[in-house]
Amino acid sequence: MLKLGIIGATGYVGAEIVRLTALRKDIGITLVASNTFAGKPYSSVYPSLRGIFDKICDPLDNIDEISDKADIFITALPHGVSGDIVPKLLARGKRVIDHSGDFRFRDTRVYEEWYKLPHKSPDLAKNAVYGLPEIYREKIRTASLVADPGCYPTCSILAIAPALANKIVSTGNIIIDAVSGVSGAGRKSDLSYSYCETEGNFKAYGLANHRHTPEIEQELSLLAGQQVLVSFTPHLAPMKRGMMATCYLDLKEDGLGTEQVLDIYNEYYKNEPFVRVLPAGSQPETKNVVGSNFIDIGVTVDKRLNKLIVVSALDNLGKGSASQAVQAVNIMAGIDETEGLLKPSLYI
Amino acid sequence: MLKLGIIGATGYVGAEIVRLTALRKDIGITLVASNTFAGKPYSSVYPSLRGIFDKICDPLDNIDEISDKADIFITALPHGVSGDIVPKLLARGKRVIDHSGDFRFRDTRVYEEWYKLPHKSPDLAKNAVYGLPEIYREKIRTASLVADPGCYPTCSILAIAPALANKIVSTGNIIIDAVSGVSGAGRKSDLSYSYCETEGNFKAYGLANHRHTPEIEQELSLLAGQQVLVSFTPHLAPMKRGMMATCYLDLKEDGLGTEQVLDIYNEYYKNEPFVRVLPAGSQPETKNVVGSNFIDIGVTVDKRLNKLIVVSALDNLGKGSASQAVQAVNIMAGIDETEGLLKPSLYI
Amino acid sequence: MLKLGIIGATGYVGAEIVRLTALRKDIGITLVASNTFAGKPYSSVYPSLRGIFDKICDPLDNIDEISDKADIFITALPHGVSGDIVPKLLARGKRVIDHSGDFRFRDTRVYEEWYKLPHKSPDLAKNAVYGLPEIYREKIRTASLVADPGCYPTCSILAIAPALANKIVSTGNIIIDAVSGVSGAGRKSDLSYSYCETEGNFKAYGLANHRHTPEIEQELSLLAGQQVLVSFTPHLAPMKRGMMATCYLDLKEDGLGTEQVLDIYNEYYKNEPFVRVLPAGSQPETKNVVGSNFIDIGVTVDKRLNKLIVVSALDNLGKGSASQAVQAVNIMAGIDETEGLLKPSLYI
Amino acid sequence: MLKLGIIGATGYVGAEIVRLTALRKDIGITLVASNTFAGKPYSSVYPSLRGIFDKICDPLDNIDEISDKADIFITALPHGVSGDIVPKLLARGKRVIDHSGDFRFRDTRVYEEWYKLPHKSPDLAKNAVYGLPEIYREKIRTASLVADPGCYPTCSILAIAPALANKIVSTGNIIIDAVSGVSGAGRKSDLSYSYCETEGNFKAYGLANHRHTPEIEQELSLLAGQQVLVSFTPHLAPMKRGMMATCYLDLKEDGLGTEQVLDIYNEYYKNEPFVRVLPAGSQPETKNVVGSNFIDIGVTVDKRLNKLIVVSALDNLGKGSASQAVQAVNIMAGIDETEGLLKPSLYI
Repeated sequence: MLKLGIIGATGYVGAEIVRLTALRKDIGITLVASNTFAGKPYSSVYPSLRGIFDKICDPLDNIDEISDKADIFITALPHGVSGDIVPKLLARGKRVIDHSGDFRFRDTRVYEEWYKLPHKSPDLAKNAVYGLPEIYREKIRTASLVADPGCYPTCSILAIAPALANKIVSTGNIIIDAVSGVSGAGRKSDLSYSYCETEGNFKAYGLANHRHTPEIEQELSLLAGQQVLVSFTPHLAPMKRGMMATCYLDLKEDGLGTEQVLDIYNEYYKNEPFVRVLPAGSQPETKNVVGSNFIDIGVTVDKRLNKLIVVSALDNLGKGSASQAVQAVNIMAGIDETEGLLKPSLYI
Repeated sequence: MLKLGIIGATGYVGAEIVRLTALRKDIGITLVASNTFAGKPYSSVYPSLRGIFDKICDPLDNIDEISDKADIFITALPHGVSGDIVPKLLARGKRVIDHSGDFRFRDTRVYEEWYKLPHKSPDLAKNAVYGLPEIYREKIRTASLVADPGCYPTCSILAIAPALANKIVSTGNIIIDAVSGVSGAGRKSDLSYSYCETEGNFKAYGLANHRHTPEIEQELSLLAGQQVLVSFTPHLAPMKRGMMATCYLDLKEDGLGTEQVLDIYNEYYKNEPFVRVLPAGSQPETKNVVGSNFIDIGVTVDKRLNKLIVVSALDNLGKGSASQAVQAVNIMAGIDETEGLLKPSLYI
Repeated sequence: MLKLGIIGATGYVGAEIVRLTALRKDIGITLVASNTFAGKPYSSVYPSLRGIFDKICDPLDNIDEISDKADIFITALPHGVSGDIVPKLLARGKRVIDHSGDFRFRDTRVYEEWYKLPHKSPDLAKNAVYGLPEIYREKIRTASLVADPGCYPTCSILAIAPALANKIVSTGNIIIDAVSGVSGAGRKSDLSYSYCETEGNFKAYGLANHRHTPEIEQELSLLAGQQVLVSFTPHLAPMKRGMMATCYLDLKEDGLGTEQVLDIYNEYYKNEPFVRVLPAGSQPETKNVVGSNFIDIGVTVDKRLNKLIVVSALDNLGKGSASQAVQAVNIMAGIDETEGLLKPSLYI
Repeated sequence: MLKLGIIGATGYVGAEIVRLTALRKDIGITLVASNTFAGKPYSSVYPSLRGIFDKICDPLDNIDEISDKADIFITALPHGVSGDIVPKLLARGKRVIDHSGDFRFRDTRVYEEWYKLPHKSPDLAKNAVYGLPEIYREKIRTASLVADPGCYPTCSILAIAPALANKIVSTGNIIIDAVSGVSGAGRKSDLSYSYCETEGNFKAYGLANHRHTPEIEQELSLLAGQQVLVSFTPHLAPMKRGMMATCYLDLKEDGLGTEQVLDIYNEYYKNEPFVRVLPAGSQPETKNVVGSNFIDIGVTVDKRLNKLIVVSALDNLGKGSASQAVQAVNIMAGIDETEGLLKPSLYI
């Protein structure tokens, strides 16, 4: 049985990892570390788990004690904090999936520019594996350090990858207009995310400066084999979970229709268990993926403008973070990649 | 033009009072005092008011300066804080409508027991007028100090008053099961009222100890001419505004039907502009009252059990607090009581 | 592998049963019958299941063909329609769990009075087992026909059973004030349940005449050993799933406190895997049970009034219908009763 | 007193017009025509208006009777139906504001292509005035037939107009990514807009073929003085009201910053009472405009990509339809344009 440790376990990403793994027989959650709730039963923080996962939360301060408790660690810590803890776990021979932005960038100068923080371990970052199984499956298998991708990047990269990799769209003028549910902001007391300020409200934020932008650009550039810049605008919608990216791409040549682009997408993802390319005329809806590890992708060619519009939907706490991390755990541990992850969304 | 001062102006009750009065020609808001936002434009706190009410917020510290600025003050301050400020305004000859619980009890020992606070001005409390126009209209007209009723009490008392006053129901065994929208908790950073913890969730709270209980009991006892106790259980529903009370009453005699009870209710409220008694078979819905000063009341006799079930709905920020305070302002100032208050809810 | 047939499979109850069983290895869904969607893939009706359950929906017209396809059938049909189909399945030697009200009443005159329909098979109804495992587990094990309980009755009966069975409360004056999410109304095109008419709205309905009333009374009477009547008022809250019952009971004797009542409840449910009695001071919230088969129960004694207030929460599509039916399937098939049903709610 | 007739009065646009005008002293609603509800009090359809507007709905069949009842008519009818009724009202010398798409296109071939309907009155369409006061105020003043603009077009055109009119952006490559609340779909029984299918769900629709596209293009082309095509993608968000357009524009020259573009926007709208250009760094939120006639606009230059991103928010039932129609009524009737329309949103 794989011993899994979760550090920063009481945020929403941690809670979702616990929900997804607590009943598994091939994985034992042997550590749930939390500064705020150390000493309290996990199920007192999330009463939905009463009787299912009542383990006492561990303190975060003693790295030796923590690192002894598990084989693979998922760190769900704020940016900057991961940078302190992850190297210590690695130094003790542990494997880590880190959910912060700290190890997502091969070039840490990009990180420093967008995150406004100095990077403490550029060498580790350079060798970390970007945890998107659809692109880096084989590297994840043997990685010591996997950087769990951001939610918007997962949603955007998987939407655009087949088009860029097959060179049917221009690398310029890529626009990604995206929407997230509120859980993307994490679990915190913040007036901006209070019920009355959020319910029924729609807004744009992070215009021209959201830190997921360079993460998307890094991966799209690698796929295209040349530098790709994107215009990325996130929005907040009044829903708890769910994310959508609407991507506008310029087709290179006239004549390509929706069906032909669908063929390319279907071929690209033909072996992927969690990517569902929808038939022509169908569009993703967040209710079909929320609570699951699926990403749904819809493709439309606007012949009038010769543009390709790709719409993708996932759960920001699912394929956008927690269940994607569990997918990486499965791969790293040599377990069937889909184990425990094929469950569908609630739909309603 | 009446000069109106609002103290504690940037909470939700204050904001609703501003929304309701900012465009009136017979009232000028001459003070919006706020500890947190002093020096900032009110419309930077509530951008919905940009271009409509951009007045700079005043500090709360200098009571002389404050009291010079208006004729009538509405204090929307936390319990306990009102008790300090209201006497100073009264001492300077001002009239006050206070929205806290501090002056709602004629017997301040009841206040002290349920609010767990010593009361500093029992004499003022004794002579304050409970600001429910349907019962105390004439006293409000000349009052120096009006205690704006709580939202649950307004919703409950108006639902039960006609039955008790007409002695058709027992004074024992009164059960009030009530529901509030989240704005009743005020504007604050609190994880319990964050979007993700609240949306789609329903819960009971304050069981057997909610401090609106003795307020309801005080007024029902006065109406019945004898002591009335009530079992009151509030719930929180995932909506921003709106409140409902479902009241279970034992009919004293057999034979009374819905239509006859309706006659009693219609007669009791025949001159009330803001109480709408619905015809038999119709029940209130919060969408019909939200944003307005109306309370809708539906009456059903359960012949099988000889019980009277009264359902009432209002807006906790409307008739349950802010617009009821404005109604009191109209009455105190000798303005037509309905001025600016007949606007219907948005419905959708 | 147990062959499970679902008739009326494309409503919300059917969809939840599919969600809960489609990935199980000990159960195969061998029939999904639907008048409306016959011939179409189930996943075209619920795209959340794309790639997981793409089975073609069967027509409902040929009972011989249908009955050959499975061992145990769950019928999720409208009241009245079940009454036609269930006898035919039973006549062909099949076992049935019926989700309508048609077989919930031992005395079909009660059914006829409240449902305003003639009952066609009073003998079948008389011998059907009421599918509440906490009360009828052993009978369910060998039953041919199980009547899956209604959502409000499950929520109410389990809340009140320990108090009545232990005779600590009066059988008179029981008040159940309940709230349901909108999915309780089923999947249909109906203006009353459209988004704009429902979102942000709270209302009472079915006052003094909801047909779940006699179902609750039947079971409480059996538990109490004498006739029990209840005053039951349902409400509709703006949420998709979730149900809460707030039950007001008169304690027979003075002196009983919350802790002592909790002892009684804990003892009563000590072997029940899906009933969670909360510690003193904790109250259920629907977010802790939605999507699961759990029911959470909180107990409060109001010493001032000598009343017992019991609050219970479940998912109307979970323990209130679909997952409770699956629990019955497990019991009837001799599978571990908790198989596939211990999954916690999403919480957010 | 102006006599106003509303035809198709019981849909959401009609209800909003009633809400906005029922209490006005300078306007009398003298006709509310509805096929479905003829003979019933308007307040039985919208109980929020009980006691405020109880007028009996008129049948729609006798055009002579209808046309006699008012001076100005607002027709809120489905596309195609307006085309039959509006000419008859005009022929009887009445002035009409039509809310369908039937008279929004100067070139009815465009209408026929996108709406898939033959146009019956191309001459009327040619001379109708597009009812956007910010562009056509003077023509509206004297118009017989005003075509009330679509919600997406209002939101998009006002966001882009200053940039195009000042020629700071390219006319090519304009992308409009937009979001609407559910009320935009109107009041109807439709499973797609039922609460359970809609709540918590986000989706794109009408990709590359939404009929508001050519309406936007017509007006932007007139502003630019050359043909403008746009890529327009609408989405549905889980909220009742509110609309946002995020517009991506290519700046023609390097060097223009956010502040300079803001100067251009502020100058363009300096005399507009309902357009609020937000300061740099502020973005619109739908809660600030819902229920009002305001449109809020935020401007951001992305220097890295030399793109201008303009975000605009309005209420699809406000400035996007009903209150904009009332604004046109004010203008046509020579009343102060802001009369009854300065009310702010509820915010919460």
